[in-house]
Order: sequence, then structure tokens, then C-alpha cells
Amino acid sequence: MPSESRRFGRLLLTGADGNLGRELRPRLRRHCQTLRLSHRQEFGPAEPGEEIVLAHLENKAAMAELLEGVDAVVHMGGVSTEQPWEPILASNIVGAYNLYEAARRNRVRRIVFASSNHVTGFYRQREVIRPTDPVRPDGLYGLSKAFGENLAQLYFDRFGIETVSLRIGSSYAEPKDRRMLATWLSFDDLERLVVAALTAPVVGHTVMYGVSDNATCWWDNTPARHIGYRPQHDSEVFRAAVEARQPHLDRDDPAVQYQGGAFVRTGPFEEDGR
Amino acid sequence: MPSESRRFGRLLLTGADGNLGRELRPRLRRHCQTLRLSHRQEFGPAEPGEEIVLAHLENKAAMAELLEGVDAVVHMGGVSTEQPWEPILASNIVGAYNLYEAARRNRVRRIVFASSNHVTGFYRQREVIRPTDPVRPDGLYGLSKAFGENLAQLYFDRFGIETVSLRIGSSYAEPKDRRMLATWLSFDDLERLVVAALTAPVVGHTVMYGVSDNATCWWDNTPARHIGYRPQHDSEVFRAAVEARQPHLDRDDPAVQYQGGAFVRTGPFEEDGR
Amino acid sequence: MPSESRRFGRLLLTGADGNLGRELRPRLRRHCQTLRLSHRQEFGPAEPGEEIVLAHLENKAAMAELLEGVDAVVHMGGVSTEQPWEPILASNIVGAYNLYEAARRNRVRRIVFASSNHVTGFYRQREVIRPTDPVRPDGLYGLSKAFGENLAQLYFDRFGIETVSLRIGSSYAEPKDRRMLATWLSFDDLERLVVAALTAPVVGHTVMYGVSDNATCWWDNTPARHIGYRPQHDSEVFRAAVEARQPHLDRDDPAVQYQGGAFVRTGPFEEDGR
Amino acid sequence: MPSESRRFGRLLLTGADGNLGRELRPRLRRHCQTLRLSHRQEFGPAEPGEEIVLAHLENKAAMAELLEGVDAVVHMGGVSTEQPWEPILASNIVGAYNLYEAARRNRVRRIVFASSNHVTGFYRQREVIRPTDPVRPDGLYGLSKAFGENLAQLYFDRFGIETVSLRIGSSYAEPKDRRMLATWLSFDDLERLVVAALTAPVVGHTVMYGVSDNATCWWDNTPARHIGYRPQHDSEVFRAAVEARQPHLDRDDPAVQYQGGAFVRTGPFEEDGR
Amino acid sequence: MPSESRRFGRLLLTGADGNLGRELRPRLRRHCQTLRLSHRQEFGPAEPGEEIVLAHLENKAAMAELLEGVDAVVHMGGVSTEQPWEPILASNIVGAYNLYEAARRNRVRRIVFASSNHVTGFYRQREVIRPTDPVRPDGLYGLSKAFGENLAQLYFDRFGIETVSLRIGSSYAEPKDRRMLATWLSFDDLERLVVAALTAPVVGHTVMYGVSDNATCWWDNTPARHIGYRPQHDSEVFRAAVEARQPHLDRDDPAVQYQGGAFVRTGPFEEDGR
Amino acid sequence: MPSESRRFGRLLLTGADGNLGRELRPRLRRHCQTLRLSHRQEFGPAEPGEEIVLAHLENKAAMAELLEGVDAVVHMGGVSTEQPWEPILASNIVGAYNLYEAARRNRVRRIVFASSNHVTGFYRQREVIRPTDPVRPDGLYGLSKAFGENLAQLYFDRFGIETVSLRIGSSYAEPKDRRMLATWLSFDDLERLVVAALTAPVVGHTVMYGVSDNATCWWDNTPARHIGYRPQHDSEVFRAAVEARQPHLDRDDPAVQYQGGAFVRTGPFEEDGR
Repeated sequence: MPSESRRFGRLLLTGADGNLGRELRPRLRRHCQTLRLSHRQEFGPAEPGEEIVLAHLENKAAMAELLEGVDAVVHMGGVSTEQPWEPILASNIVGAYNLYEAARRNRVRRIVFASSNHVTGFYRQREVIRPTDPVRPDGLYGLSKAFGENLAQLYFDRFGIETVSLRIGSSYAEPKDRRMLATWLSFDDLERLVVAALTAPVVGHTVMYGVSDNATCWWDNTPARHIGYRPQHDSEVFRAAVEARQPHLDRDDPAVQYQGGAFVRTGPFEEDGR
Repeated sequence: MPSESRRFGRLLLTGADGNLGRELRPRLRRHCQTLRLSHRQEFGPAEPGEEIVLAHLENKAAMAELLEGVDAVVHMGGVSTEQPWEPILASNIVGAYNLYEAARRNRVRRIVFASSNHVTGFYRQREVIRPTDPVRPDGLYGLSKAFGENLAQLYFDRFGIETVSLRIGSSYAEPKDRRMLATWLSFDDLERLVVAALTAPVVGHTVMYGVSDNATCWWDNTPARHIGYRPQHDSEVFRAAVEARQPHLDRDDPAVQYQGGAFVRTGPFEEDGR
Repeated sequence: MPSESRRFGRLLLTGADGNLGRELRPRLRRHCQTLRLSHRQEFGPAEPGEEIVLAHLENKAAMAELLEGVDAVVHMGGVSTEQPWEPILASNIVGAYNLYEAARRNRVRRIVFASSNHVTGFYRQREVIRPTDPVRPDGLYGLSKAFGENLAQLYFDRFGIETVSLRIGSSYAEPKDRRMLATWLSFDDLERLVVAALTAPVVGHTVMYGVSDNATCWWDNTPARHIGYRPQHDSEVFRAAVEARQPHLDRDDPAVQYQGGAFVRTGPFEEDGR
Repeated sequence: MPSESRRFGRLLLTGADGNLGRELRPRLRRHCQTLRLSHRQEFGPAEPGEEIVLAHLENKAAMAELLEGVDAVVHMGGVSTEQPWEPILASNIVGAYNLYEAARRNRVRRIVFASSNHVTGFYRQREVIRPTDPVRPDGLYGLSKAFGENLAQLYFDRFGIETVSLRIGSSYAEPKDRRMLATWLSFDDLERLVVAALTAPVVGHTVMYGVSDNATCWWDNTPARHIGYRPQHDSEVFRAAVEARQPHLDRDDPAVQYQGGAFVRTGPFEEDGR
Repeated sequence: MPSESRRFGRLLLTGADGNLGRELRPRLRRHCQTLRLSHRQEFGPAEPGEEIVLAHLENKAAMAELLEGVDAVVHMGGVSTEQPWEPILASNIVGAYNLYEAARRNRVRRIVFASSNHVTGFYRQREVIRPTDPVRPDGLYGLSKAFGENLAQLYFDRFGIETVSLRIGSSYAEPKDRRMLATWLSFDDLERLVVAALTAPVVGHTVMYGVSDNATCWWDNTPARHIGYRPQHDSEVFRAAVEARQPHLDRDDPAVQYQGGAFVRTGPFEEDGR
Repeated sequence: MPSESRRFGRLLLTGADGNLGRELRPRLRRHCQTLRLSHRQEFGPAEPGEEIVLAHLENKAAMAELLEGVDAVVHMGGVSTEQPWEPILASNIVGAYNLYEAARRNRVRRIVFASSNHVTGFYRQREVIRPTDPVRPDGLYGLSKAFGENLAQLYFDRFGIETVSLRIGSSYAEPKDRRMLATWLSFDDLERLVVAALTAPVVGHTVMYGVSDNATCWWDNTPARHIGYRPQHDSEVFRAAVEARQPHLDRDDPAVQYQGGAFVRTGPFEEDGR
């Protein structure tokens, strides 16, 4: 639809060959004249309306170049699972800093930042929280995403660069386990969310959860209603199948107690934990 | 339907020849035995079931007469745009006082007061607010509506006269611009809202926003769920057309930054503003 | 459906011959292998998949026995209307204590407790409250239910026994009067609510209101969204009939002013009230 | 001082021979014409200006008689430690009900109720709470005090009997251990608190913590500043001595983690706890 | 003290011959080079360092002239008691508008506005409120002061004119009755408050209560701690005398129930109230 | 005093040769048997009761060694002013991670972390905030301290290592400018604060502001009253001198508008800012 594609000239999608990047790639192409795709390693040729620029997030000069001529960024790049400190430091801390510095120098005005529900993973599954509650990361990954959100806040307060930080739940074709009945974000809802975050007229730095309209939910997005995200999917249709697959839960397992699930008890700490 | 028309004996609609008054006139007739219509100037003959009483809001005696024998009031009268101080003072401050004094003397027990979102127009479009947040009027018009709300609170606390103050967004046949995607109130939803405000058993002084169920919204009406207003329309169906008509927004324009839109930068102040 | 019936081995339903117990009996049978039914007096034979164990709540030994071998409890038993102190003390205070002690000794881990909106009946019908607001019981019945909720909190904090306290509104085939337009809980929604409360993975002690998705509502269940209760019914379809049946309300009647309705002015106090 | 003694005609002090009753007895005598003292068993003769009426709290008729001719009550009676259910039920639940019923029948208008910090004992020592936060009793004693507070709320909302519920911390000559550095209430501050609660013009049902002005404190009494209680003592002067006496704390001990201290792990449950 | 007098060049004090104006006159002279004094009628000659300019608040041209060359305003002028609508409208509504318009045209940047506790007089004496709670005026006077506060908010949001709105309690040489034990503001504390409000570097529009450090207090000024007001007086030293003078209170009198005291039941409404 | 010195065996002070480290060094020696001092470069010999271990924060192995045998840490080390990204990354991000990892491996259970008010420097000087409000760092330094706080939260939630994060205001011998009238922390109050943070029995992860009892203050430490910090100094005694030295403020200067002062407009961004 021509009127929609006029929304953006050049849109940058980082992490274009990651799980969510691959879903968003064809969907975002509809919303811009040129979709610039970036990833760490090569991932095949550009389609019409696309251009590909490889870059490592920890490479400041490469990042500055990557953002040249860009109108807005959908930042799905970086580490997206619990990993050792070094790669997280490189991609999600140094890399996020490089991204925002590049945005500042290139006068990019809007970033959609893939944050994570693991920023608040140490809240309980029996609590309903808001984006403004204090963060409680459940590991180094969540910690690095909290850093990214604070960086976004700084670059808005200081330089006027706007960000929507999406604390994405679990974005898969369908919910895989009991926890995802609460955290599931369908791919179509992910698209709705990213497009709303890109096109809302003013967002400042808005933090919100990326989740479908699941009957069970731990997150209250009321403070972000100005984004105009209206999810259409509900994990409930998968409940019977999911409960059949995972009939028993060990209620004393921290992965069942906390919103972060298994993230709260795995990671690079274990070798010599207490 | 006879059972519904029994809801009110005589209902007064002020501002009956204004934009919203003309929409409400045929709709409210269904809910009462007699619809008394009032406006500043003549506006044609009464239909069956109607009676017409002209009155100037700033005329205390005329207002006292206007409310005689009335069961409830839908007060759409007065100035509804940013204007110089004098007409606002006359209609919206003195006029509102005259209306409530007339209600007190005539023992009218319920008023639906057309307040305005401009009572809180200096909040940002990136904020979601509640009716209980401190007011931030965006001009003399919003200031006068805040006065009306406080007056309503006083007459409830002191005399038991109940009011629902409706902070109406933008009530038009359809949203005209990007801002109205958030503020739009369809005429049918306006009717639902006014009828709910008139018929809810107890309301004290309730403040709420008058807005359809738009995907994008800056207002959280949760504290007013006891009114029983359930909007049925969503501005989303007009989004593509509106965005096509208004593809570019100047994000640095106060009219884009603040909820009040252009009201925050127009008005009778400009001649010698700073 | 086999996968669902595997959810519980033996489920205990107390108050099985009460108004709500009779509704829940056939509905809960679908969710467990054995439904143990209990009431004060005999109430007929067990159906297939059921077993019947009579017990008085105030009888500690009988209660201990009643909970033997039970996986979870739906506690609908006890006094459910305003009554003199003695039966309320026996069933709802001593009885609740006996139930939780029996649960502790038998290592039952989940209780769905039929609390009541009368725990907060002295809030106004013009207020919207949350489960975390301070309690304001409207009589001895509401007071006893507040005791039960606090007991549940204690047994969770101290012994890890989880409870969902359902502050049930008005659960009938349809709303009988104007107040019930706000408080109505359809039987199907009651079932949805109880099943969600039984099967949510972790609940700690969660307090929530038991109410359908009525347009008019005084209660904001947002803090309990983790339970996954999604009501399907709305009292609005009964509005015209209800308003026709009860066209006039005396707004000065405490039963109209307060959420508790007639409970706020009836009860065992009247003989020598002030 | 004659002007002060005119404050009350007849004041009733229950639990007059308990630890705090004995402290308050000579202090309250200064504020009334007659101090009626009550306890379960005999405790010696009345002093001038006193009268003694023995009564068991669970004896409804005796309580009704005890409150005859009384202007206000300072209710220090009942069980004040963790004990088995039966005595707590008798004195603190049935007894509290009897007291309020007696107050209603005798038109007593003000009660100062000795509640306890154990009503919220399951909050953490690293949290600062307010009287309006949800209760989390740490045992049967705390549970019974929560019942008393709710009863007081009911008798205010329904009958206009006013209560100040004092969640007393640790009222001793001096703090005995590390926990009491936070919870200590000096006897002089106890007197100030009770007198303020008796003489504040309007109190409705006010809940507040009874604690001196300790540097370390878990409770924020801001919502009760209308009572006019201004503590004069600070546990800090005892810190060095207390820390010398109790140099080591086991931070993993629930008694150190929770505000309720040792109450959270003792009591009548242990015989067959999990 | 020279360093202090350099704080302001020309300071305007309106209402200079009112009760508080007369107290502030000699005190403010110490803080400025020229103290311009204004009142409705003549009130004697100027002292050294003073200049006198008479003006009626409702006279727009006179007000514009009055503010010429002024650095800051202490606005104590206008009606300060409950009166009929007409004088309140003229002085406190039209007059306030004229003052702010004059400030805007003369580029005055700071106003200290004498608002009143009667802006929130319909809260209960058993409640502790904050400046950000919704207003509940207790009469036309309080309503007009709420208008003034909203006007101040508008002129800050729109024109950057800063205001501290002081909701003054009861400023007298000493508290005259029981209510004033809570509301008393000593003259020295009034001076401290006005000077702090004038000299705090940035205030935006700050609302706060004007009250001494009374043991009994209904108002929590925490949100205004940036003003740097530290009261030194406490009404407690007058308590015995005040209680002796007013030993009995009728607790059912609205003047005892509500923070506004007698204002909630007096005023120009009575002739034909309900 | 022997009883006090028994409080800690070996206490580690990092940044021992920084401004605050030099103040704390002799003061902390009184509270432990051995004070281990660390800094980046040599800074002279150890006094009796001290031991010196040099270490670079970004050196993981050195940090692991530094924390061997330590009971508690006062972490004043790292960059404490706005600087380029690289040193902040090395000392405050990588360094903080190394510190907590070293604490985990050495089973150190308490850290006092010198955070900074610049974590929330983009709040306005006309706002009063709490430690639980969302962070708004004013530069890379504040951003790195926010990282440190989140890291502390993670290591508490996951490993039980307790931290008090002190958002230190301006700790100097006396306030140097107008802003410091609000932010000043005297050296004696700094000592009180650090000692309270070290010795409070349970702290979890507590965030609080490090500030004296200044009349003017932007921070409400109520949520941290369990720490038992009671400041004794007030910047007010320096007000006249400070105002004389800095009589004029440019209210439009961001350094005057925001709590972070000049930090909000300086730093490594300027070369090519917008």
C-alpha cells in the first residue's frame, strides 16, 4: 500500500538474521522505501527494496557508518540469551553505546529497542507489574538490557533521540510451555508492536512489555497506551495442548516462581555459585 | 421504548444548537418525557416532546427560571473553544456558577457537565493520565472548565448535587488529524456516555474522559468504571486515511508534544507573549 | 476430556449443597478424578466420580479427616449471608481455622476460598477499588470473610499453602436488581474463575473480585491478571429488564450509596442500634 | 492539673494488670475523673480516683456491664503473645466482639485499641510500610489483632464508634535486642500516644504504629499525623549496649529477616509443621 | 544585612494593609531594595525603602501599571474570607487573572500566591493529604483560590512565570481554637515560608501548605521540600490553654469533621439551602 | 571502643586515596580490626590496623584477590566524575562486575556501594523524588552508576549478597554553591551513613540518597528508614555565605533546572552534539 510505505525512507533492522529479525524482515519492508539489514555475519543477498550492511556492534566506526542516512532503527541485534559476561559486554553494553552514539552523530530520531522481560525477571509469577516498577534483572542478559534502557533514557533526556524499549516476552510461532501462556508474543502482534512504536507521533523514552493479549498476564501496559499497540492474539487457544505437554510443575522451582523462568537459575555463574 | 422514556421526566439540554447539542438533541429525546432545549439565540421550533427556553448563561435570573421543573441537566452550553477572557468569564465561569446556583434552588440532583480534555492539555502526548491527576489547563478555555469541575465538586460536597464531568476529547463524525486518533469520541459513543452519566445510580462528582475505545489513548478511565460507559468505536479504522492526509508531523511543535494540541500555542495571549 | 481430568486427583468441594456448590458440582467433576463433596447435612447420593463426606466446619477432628488425601479445596462452605454472631463465629471463623489447620496437617497446597464483596462493602458505589485497598466490611459476614483472607495470608507466608480468595459479587442465573448490574457473576464465569484459580501455576495468596465483565463495575482486578481469569458475560444484556423492574432508586438509601447494598443496613445489630 | 483531668469523666482501662496496663494506670489517672480498671483476675485494691471491675472478655454480659457509664476505653486486655488458638479465640476474637457490642449498647464513642505490629509481621525488616498496606500477620496473635482492627472499622462505618488502633511495637523500659532498636516504644511515648489517641477531636478508625522516634524504623506513620502523636524518645542511645549484648545476627534466620521477629517461627503450629 | 537585601530589587506586596500584609510588610523590607505596597484603599504613608501604589484587583489597567518594574510579587491581596459571589468573582477570579496578565506583560518571573487550605476544606480532619490530591473547596472562597492555583499552573506551563501557591492554614499570633492546633502558622514561620518561596532557585508551579511544625497536622508537604521551608514553631505549647478554652467539641458538627472548619457550613448559600 | 571495633574483622575500602576515601579511612578504622585499603596507584604506607592492596578495578584476577578474606566492602573506587566512555566502561562497568564476581566467589555478604545522585540527574530541581522512581541518568557517569545499582540488585536476588547503594549528593567540607544547599553531605554524615549501611542487620538491596538533613532537599529517603541513618548537619548555616558568593542564577540554564546541575550539559558528547 503506497501510503504506508511512505512512512519511512530508510529503516535499519539490526539482528536481521536472528529469530525475530527473520520474522520482521518481510513485514517491515512494507513500511519503508529502503530496508537496511544488518547482522554480524553474512546471511545471503538483499531482496528488492533492501540493502545489506554487515557490522559488529562493538565496532564503533562500523556502527557510525551503519546508521548513515537512516531515518529510524529497529534494534534486534546483540545477544538475546543468557551468556558469559564478555559477549554480553561487547554486544549489549558496548554495542548499545555505539548504536546510540552513531544515532546521535547521524541525527537519527527514533529507535525501537528490543529489550527483554528478563529486565524484571526476579518479580514473581504471582505479581502484576508495570513498566515503571524498579528493575530486577534475572541475569547478565537482563542486566545488559536494563543498561540499554537507561542509555535510551539518557539519549532522550539529553539529545532528544526517542526510543520505545520493548520488553519482549516470548516471541515464537506458539507458546512452548506453561510460562509462555503468560509471556507469549505472536509474530503478528510483534509486527503490530514494532510498527506502532515506529509510527506513534511522540514517544520520548517509553518502556513497555511486548506481549500478546493473553488471558494470563503479569504485565500491565497501561502507562504505554499512547503507543497505540492493540494485540490481537491470545495464548489461551494453546492452553489445553500446552498443559497436556507439561502437566506437572514443581511449584518450588525458582523457574516456576519467578517471571524470568529458567533464566533465574541458569547462566555463567553456576560453576562456583554458593 | 416506553420503559426507557420513563427514565426522566424533564431533561434540560443547554447549548442545544451547538455542534454536540445538535447531535444529542434527537438522541436524548428517546430518554425523557420532555426535552427542554436551551441556547443563546433562537434556533427554530420545538419538535414534539421538546420545549425551547432561550437563556444567556451569565443571566442569573434567566438561568434560575431555565432550571425550574427540571430533573437533570446535560450542560453542553458555553464557550467551547479558546477565546478571549471576557466571553469565557461570562459563559463558563459566571455562567457555570449561575447554573449550579439555579440547580441548587430548584433542587435538581444530577448534572452532566461538558468539561474538556483541555483541562489537562499540558500533559505530554507520551503520557497516560488519570482523571485524578492534577489539572494542567492549556488555555483560558481549559482553565474555565477546570473551574466548572471544582464548582461541581463543591456543590456535591456541600449540597449533594451530583455531577459527571466529561472531559470530552474530539467529538466529530470522524477523526480529522493524527491527534484525534487518540482523542476521538464518536457521536454514538458520546450518546452512550451521556446516557450512562445520567442513569448511573450514584455518581457523586465523577470526572472522566469522553473518548471512544481508540487503540491509541492518553487517558485511563479506570477510576470511572462505575459509570458503566462502554465505548463501541475505535479510531483505528480511520488511521490509514488520516496518516495519508497528514503524513508529516513536526515533532518539535508544541501542538504535537502536548495533549492539548494546537490549543497550547494559540489563543488571546499572543499579541504580546514573550 | 482426559487431559483436563488429569489436572487433579481428588478435589474437595465444601458447601456442595449450597447455591453455588450445586452449580459447581457438575462443572468441577470434569476437572478431577474424584470430586469429594461435603456439606453440613445429607444431600443425596454421590454420582460416579464423586464421594460424599459430611462434616461440620466447627468440628476440628471432622475437618482434619475431611481433608485427608485431598489435592486441592474449593471452599464454598460456611455462612454466606448476614447472620447472628454465633453461627458466623462457628462456621466462618472457627471453621476457617479448622480448614486451614486440616490443610496444613494433610499437606494440601491450594485452596480456592469463597470470600465476598462484603469484605469491602462500605466503599461507595461511586468508587472503583482494588483488591489491595484496606478492607471495610459491611457486617459480621463480611468481617468473617476478611478474617478468612487474613488467615489465608498467614498460612501462605508461614506454611506455603496457596489460596485464591475470591470476593464473589452476586452469582445468580441473572442480575436481580440495579446493584447486580455491577456485581453480577454468571455461573459460567464462576466456573472459569474457580478453574483458573485452581490451575494457575503459582498464586501465593491472591485476592480478587469474582465478577463478570460487566460494563458497570466497581472493582479493578488488574493486580490479579496472573490468575488468567477472562470473564465472558456482561450484565448489560439484562439492563433494560432490570431497570424496568426497579425504575426508581432512593439515592439517599445507604443500600444505594454503598457497594455492600442492603447488607450495610441489615443484620443482627438492629434490635438496639443507635 | 484540673484542666486536664476534665478531659474525661470515666475512662476504662482493660488489661489493667498487664505489663502495659500497669504502666498506663498511674499515667491515665491524671486525665480523667474516674479511672475504671479491669482485668481477668483480682489485682489489688483501687487507688483514689479509681474503681475496679473484674471481667472476662469472653463473657458478653460481664462486658456489657463493664462498659456502663464509660466515656472512652483504652483496651489493653486480651492475649498479648503467641498462644494456642483457643485462648486467642476467646479473648481476642470473641472478646473483641463483646467489647464493641458493649460499646455500641452503652453508646461509648471512642476506643483506643492495643493492636500489634504482628499484624504486619511478615513484611521484611528491609521494608518500610504504612498503616494502609495489606496486613500480613505472623501468627494467630497477629491474626486476632487484624480481626480487631477490621471489627473497629466496621463499628465506625456502621455505628460511628471511633477507634485508634495502635500497632504497638515493643514497649519496655529499654530495647532488649537488635530488633527492638527499630520497634521500641518507651513508656513515656506510649502515654503520649494513648493520650493523643484519646483526645484527638476526630479519628474515625485510624490505624498507626506505636513506636518511639527511633533512628531505625520500619513504619511510616505519615497517614496518622492528624492524631498529633509526637514521640520524644529514640532507641539510638541504647544502640552500643544492645549491639554489645547481641553482637552476631544470623541473617538467614527468619526472625532476623521479618519484622515480626521470632514470632514468625514460633507458636502453636510447630508440633506437626511441614 | 546587605547581602540579603540584594536578593530583590523591587518586590511588590499586595494586600499590604490586610492582616498578613501588615505582618509581612516590615519583614519583607529586609529582603529587597524597594518594597512596593499595594492595597485597595489608602493606608498611610510609605516608610523608607517603600513605595505605595493603590490599585483595585479588578481594574486591569491599574494592575498592569502596578506590576511595572517589579521583580517578584507576594500576592496577599483579594478576598480572604467566605463572602458573596460578586466580590469573590471581582477580586479573586478577575483580579487573579489581571495579576497574571500584568505579570506576563511586565515579564515578572516569580509570584508567591496566598492560596488557602480552604481549597481542600472538604477533606476530613482524620485524613492526611498532599498538595497533589484532588481539590475539594469548601466554599466560594476556596473555589476562587483553586482557580488562582490553576491559573498559576497555566501561566507557568505556557509562559514560564513561576508561582509558589501557599495554602495558608491559620496565621495568627497564636492558635485560637482546637482546629488551629492543626492549622496554625506563626508569623515568623509565615515569613520563613514566603522568603523561601521567593528565593528558591526554581519552583515551576509548586503548591504547598502554609503551616507551622505542629504535632497535629493534616498536611504532608513532602512534595515541596525543594522550597527549603523549615518551620520553627509548634502549636503544641498552646494546647493546654486552647483545650481549656474549648473543652467540648461536637463531633457531629461538620465544622469538626472537615478540615475547612466552620467554612464548610457558612457562607452566602444559607438563605435557601436544602 | 572495643565493642564497636568488633563489628567487622576485615573491611575493604576501595578508592581509599580518593576524596571521600581519604575522609573515610580514619573514620572506618574505628569500626574494624583490619581496614584493607585499595587504590589504583600507590598512596603511601599503611597505618596500624591497616593493610594496603593495590588493584585495578578492570583486572578481574586482581579484584578476586583483593576481596579474599574480606567481611564487607565500602566501594568508593572507580570514576567519580563525568569522563569519556572508555575509563567509565573500564572502572565503573567492567570494574563493578569484577567486584561483585569477586564478592560472590569470596562469599562476601555486604557491600556499601557509592552510587551517585547523577543516576537521577534529569529530574527537575522543583521535584522531590524517591529512590524507587525510575532512573534518569544525566551522563555516562550516572549511567554507569545505574548499572552498578542494577548489578547489586541482581547479586542480591540471585546470590543473597546485600548492598546499600548510596546515591551520594555533594560531599565536601561545606556546600560550594546554591545547588549544594540541597545536595550537601557533610563528612560526618557520610560516616554515619556508611556505618549505618554496614551495620543494619538486613538490607537486601537498598537504594537511598546520601545527603545531610538540609532544609532544602529533593530526595525523600522514607523507603530507607530501616537503615537507621540519621543525619545531623544542615546546609542552612552556609546559606547566607553561599548566596552572597553566587547571588544570581540563570533560571533557564539546564544546570539550574535539573538536579544533576552542570553534569546535564557537560561531558564527552559536546564535540558534535546537536
